[in-house]
Amino acid sequence: MAAPVQERKRVVILGGGFAGLNAALGLAKLPVDVTIVDRRNHHTFQPLLYQVALAVLSPADIAQPIRSIVNRYPNVEVLMDEAAGFDTTARHVLLKSGAQLEYDYLIVATGSTHSYFGHDEWSTLAPGLKTIEDATEIRRRVLLAFELAERQMLETGVHPRLDFVVIGGGPTGVELAGAISDIAKLYMKRDFRHIDPSQAHVLILEGSPHILAAYPADLQQKAIDQLHALGVETRVNAHVSDIQPGYVMVGEEKIAAMVTLWAAGVQASPLGKLLGFETDRRGCVLVDPQLNPEGFKEIFICGDLAHVMQDGKQVPGVAQPAMQMGTYAARSIGRDIAGKPRGDFRYFDKGDMATIGRKAAVAKIEWPFKAHLSGFPAWFTWLFVHIFFLIGFRNRLNVFREWAWTYLTFKDGVRLITGSHELPGWEAEHGLEVPKTEDRPATPAAP
Amino acid sequence: MAAPVQERKRVVILGGGFAGLNAALGLAKLPVDVTIVDRRNHHTFQPLLYQVALAVLSPADIAQPIRSIVNRYPNVEVLMDEAAGFDTTARHVLLKSGAQLEYDYLIVATGSTHSYFGHDEWSTLAPGLKTIEDATEIRRRVLLAFELAERQMLETGVHPRLDFVVIGGGPTGVELAGAISDIAKLYMKRDFRHIDPSQAHVLILEGSPHILAAYPADLQQKAIDQLHALGVETRVNAHVSDIQPGYVMVGEEKIAAMVTLWAAGVQASPLGKLLGFETDRRGCVLVDPQLNPEGFKEIFICGDLAHVMQDGKQVPGVAQPAMQMGTYAARSIGRDIAGKPRGDFRYFDKGDMATIGRKAAVAKIEWPFKAHLSGFPAWFTWLFVHIFFLIGFRNRLNVFREWAWTYLTFKDGVRLITGSHELPGWEAEHGLEVPKTEDRPATPAAP
Repeated sequence: MAAPVQERKRVVILGGGFAGLNAALGLAKLPVDVTIVDRRNHHTFQPLLYQVALAVLSPADIAQPIRSIVNRYPNVEVLMDEAAGFDTTARHVLLKSGAQLEYDYLIVATGSTHSYFGHDEWSTLAPGLKTIEDATEIRRRVLLAFELAERQMLETGVHPRLDFVVIGGGPTGVELAGAISDIAKLYMKRDFRHIDPSQAHVLILEGSPHILAAYPADLQQKAIDQLHALGVETRVNAHVSDIQPGYVMVGEEKIAAMVTLWAAGVQASPLGKLLGFETDRRGCVLVDPQLNPEGFKEIFICGDLAHVMQDGKQVPGVAQPAMQMGTYAARSIGRDIAGKPRGDFRYFDKGDMATIGRKAAVAKIEWPFKAHLSGFPAWFTWLFVHIFFLIGFRNRLNVFREWAWTYLTFKDGVRLITGSHELPGWEAEHGLEVPKTEDRPATPAAP
Repeated sequence: MAAPVQERKRVVILGGGFAGLNAALGLAKLPVDVTIVDRRNHHTFQPLLYQVALAVLSPADIAQPIRSIVNRYPNVEVLMDEAAGFDTTARHVLLKSGAQLEYDYLIVATGSTHSYFGHDEWSTLAPGLKTIEDATEIRRRVLLAFELAERQMLETGVHPRLDFVVIGGGPTGVELAGAISDIAKLYMKRDFRHIDPSQAHVLILEGSPHILAAYPADLQQKAIDQLHALGVETRVNAHVSDIQPGYVMVGEEKIAAMVTLWAAGVQASPLGKLLGFETDRRGCVLVDPQLNPEGFKEIFICGDLAHVMQDGKQVPGVAQPAMQMGTYAARSIGRDIAGKPRGDFRYFDKGDMATIGRKAAVAKIEWPFKAHLSGFPAWFTWLFVHIFFLIGFRNRLNVFREWAWTYLTFKDGVRLITGSHELPGWEAEHGLEVPKTEDRPATPAAP
């Protein structure tokens, strides 16, 4: 590498998600030295994480080492570490490993995590979906439920209903529920001899009055119709009061759940609070229209961690605005260096979409034309937009090939169960250890 | 499914590895009812497991759910469970979940596992390579070593040498060592700014006097030459007396090891002993030339679990004989049903091969012609033989595509670190928490 040149500005980026990565790619062409700090070694394409959770894609299809994304830029380095503290006066970040990074500009884009609304004990009973590890854990639980039911059917001739409860009716909840239904009804048809996987029952519990609350009313209704067509039940105004192994409580009602998944609450990364700036109730940092916290023009808060108001509404915490904020921060630093005024950040909304299983989706398109789509056209649009935005040509090819394969053959090849072979609450609730059959027919009839 | 027909024989297969799966595929065409019991839901193509461990392939490339392999055969069912006991008089298997399976024929093919020679405490310090989980754990450790070294270099300006110690100089040890060297020297070249990954040092410690002891002397020497050309050091007659976080003891000598891998000892699955038949010192069941333990013509022991003598030598515990034993057991059952005599099992040895990194290998070919190959021709042969034997057309295509990509671009896209971000012994040995640098140059020079 070249010897350090004093005039070069040092930019530290915390977080290698959509915002951080887009900032880094924008800065790569500028005369600055960039350090991306992330506690994971890979960028995750979060909008497709649910497809890993439901065994359509493999982790490597939607994750890519951050190093291999930026290794062509000599002025960008990557550090697998985590911020542990800030000195915003002296301008340095203290890392968990003990090192200190000095900066001229700091971009904080560490995103968000699950919120269990004060019930952290629910996290092991109802995993959420934010990381590759979360996705393989959900995959393990969903697939294991079918295996355990088959085993119990063979032993006792009966099995408890395959109840999957998804808590939260936003895009992630809808996508998870639709995909579980697809797996059970389409892809597992021929795999079992004793249970009928298509009898699986999927229920979405949403606390607010609306499924896909952020979407217009006509698309909400279309989404509900498509979910119901798949056999997914939806309940709104359903406040979960407790989660236990094998069931969920909604008020006084006990709802059986062989597998419970969490797609309800989101809170900002704890770094928001650690920075010491004003935050909203979810821990997002309040920033001005240039994404700076009050009084710190050298600090940019980007992505889910930023509380940005535009036209009286908060910019949503999804991939598109995160990418745009990262790009904006890089461009602002470039304008500073060039001695030009920065200009304000403005979220350019191209639209939103959520899939509801195979061949169904809803899409609110804002650009290049305005439209509300549902069903196959929405799904087709979703398909190409997501392939287009995947980081890395190789991943794009892989994902396209996997989808084409799954679509044409109704087969998934990645239904691997790794890790523990137990499901919380299965044995207690379903009494697997209790009944012993002395005899079984050689080929028991399917239910 | 059809109602049970009394005359149909019930065959229980324990283990969905090469032996069990080939037995099932052979039995699928016979008038028998087959139950495959495996505690995992997937078959693993073990000869390529080291490529998952070294991030060339993804788990889904070399593993396939057993259900999806056999789901086209209505007379074959799969149960995700584990044998816990046998009644060989009443002819039933007790499963861990509590169920009992009656059988007319029992095929036991539960393979082998690591042996730490009585030092089970070494297992967490030096993981072995038998399962998908093992492979991702090794991947995690190897990749993490580079990340931690980069981090420490940035903090302190020095880092401990990247020492990888592979215990065991058989095919697995040689393949792991060659692949670590490839990763460090070829694929990570551009990924780091502070460390030079090509300075990594790989050492094979072999207890016997020979690397690849099962190979002819000329190929042993060729293997050593190719390993040395890659910079891999080999030591024979090296008896490991202790493994600790950060180092390995060979007699009184302390050998630094940032990552230690175990490819030395193998022992039979504990089911061998549980069956109650005579076993050898590794726990393999002694069987007659028809693969039956003495006095039990309805029980077949297949694969690594079987101790089979042929021409005064023991048939080796590798994939090829396992496949042949499974097929033989199925054929023998078919001959019983047809009222024909069984004939003896005879291992038809087509040869053996081991890769030594990119473009290097050794191959002892026995069929269709006899030859000793090394270097590129051996590697090329290895490539096509392994793709050819992969279970499933889809996997074959995937693996071919991944290899072509890696070969042409020198890139791997699957270098994901999942799970814990700690390496046993790193902090204690290398004092990561201790030194704090107050200043660092904006772009420290590479070493």
